[in-house]
Amino acid sequence: MNKPKTVLIYSGGIDSTVLLYFLLKSENNVKALSVNYGQRHGKELDYAKNMCGQLNVEHHVADLTALNPLLSGSSLTSPHVQVPEGHYEDQGMKATVVPNRNMILLSIATGWAMSTGASSVSYAAHSGDRAIYPDCREEFADAMNNVMEIAGWDKVSLNRPFSSLTKADIVKLGDKLGVPFEQTWSCYKGQKLHCGMCGTCVERREAFQLAGVTDPTIYDNV
Amino acid sequence: MNKPKTVLIYSGGIDSTVLLYFLLKSENNVKALSVNYGQRHGKELDYAKNMCGQLNVEHHVADLTALNPLLSGSSLTSPHVQVPEGHYEDQGMKATVVPNRNMILLSIATGWAMSTGASSVSYAAHSGDRAIYPDCREEFADAMNNVMEIAGWDKVSLNRPFSSLTKADIVKLGDKLGVPFEQTWSCYKGQKLHCGMCGTCVERREAFQLAGVTDPTIYDNV
Repeated sequence: MNKPKTVLIYSGGIDSTVLLYFLLKSENNVKALSVNYGQRHGKELDYAKNMCGQLNVEHHVADLTALNPLLSGSSLTSPHVQVPEGHYEDQGMKATVVPNRNMILLSIATGWAMSTGASSVSYAAHSGDRAIYPDCREEFADAMNNVMEIAGWDKVSLNRPFSSLTKADIVKLGDKLGVPFEQTWSCYKGQKLHCGMCGTCVERREAFQLAGVTDPTIYDNV
Repeated sequence: MNKPKTVLIYSGGIDSTVLLYFLLKSENNVKALSVNYGQRHGKELDYAKNMCGQLNVEHHVADLTALNPLLSGSSLTSPHVQVPEGHYEDQGMKATVVPNRNMILLSIATGWAMSTGASSVSYAAHSGDRAIYPDCREEFADAMNNVMEIAGWDKVSLNRPFSSLTKADIVKLGDKLGVPFEQTWSCYKGQKLHCGMCGTCVERREAFQLAGVTDPTIYDNV
């Protein structure tokens, strides 16, 4: 029997790297898609590329920096807006929202899935994102799945096995699967080390603590 | 009262140009989005740009040519596949399908609508496209509307006033609205004149005939 083919939305962070290991363990034929939508730094793309190289997974970076003038107003894409510090779920973190980011990512991944004969798009949305991002809610994922399944000649479904997990659960699972966490990148700031202070760094540290898993990350300010 | 703001998906062809006139007539504040997804020629983008300049409508071209390696297999984007001639609705015309094109266009337009405070995305899908493109069917548009409306903090709806019209109906409406049809472009081939033979040229000629409206287009092979 042929292995099921899936296109993984892959950022190079903890969640999608654990999902990559999980899919490979379940004997999927995985292709990984990263998107450069004009992040301030290319560090997470480098981490994504290195990981896929090690695991012999086909990896493509779709360059969407041309969309920047349309999707302004976000600190992830605009050099004029300061990256907020504090907890990922705080209201101030809304400044990091790229308008309609997930629908854009999923629609491109679905196009690739169609052209390559994959039957699903996999992504690592989990229960911790939902307070901040409307497009991380379950109802959004359900509605995306509905439209993805009827958009082409062959059905492409949205695969989100982590949707009921917390980030700490994902760290526990990654620990079991032997994920080399030190080779994943979370920090919004693209410096040499994880800053330890921005929203994703705070969330990363907390996830290891809650999971009871040793955090191999070296932080700059902790 | 403020005018309703809408982002129009604008190709520079007949359908979306008539919709542009229709929206301006209904006193909408219109922004127009064209997408360069690696068409073989930039002719329709030039026509789109000129029309928006004349009507004083803000126009943006999103460059998605970087997605070409992902969305291969289409004669619209690949120089190695011959453009099929014949009727637009023939099965052979399936070769012109760009995988998931409409979802990608609509997701980007929705992102722009969110960042600019528009309450809708307008597009000119009509009843004639449906035999060929899964993502032109009503059920696709309904499902897109569902996901667009919950993807952000503010609701963005999908506005498709032409969904029950034929292309001939659209030509009739454009005639009433004073649309300068000779300043629109349909032909898949990017030569000096409309070729008259490719799928969209055949459809264009037929629409004027059925509408009983004089076709001002000069065709190369008719």
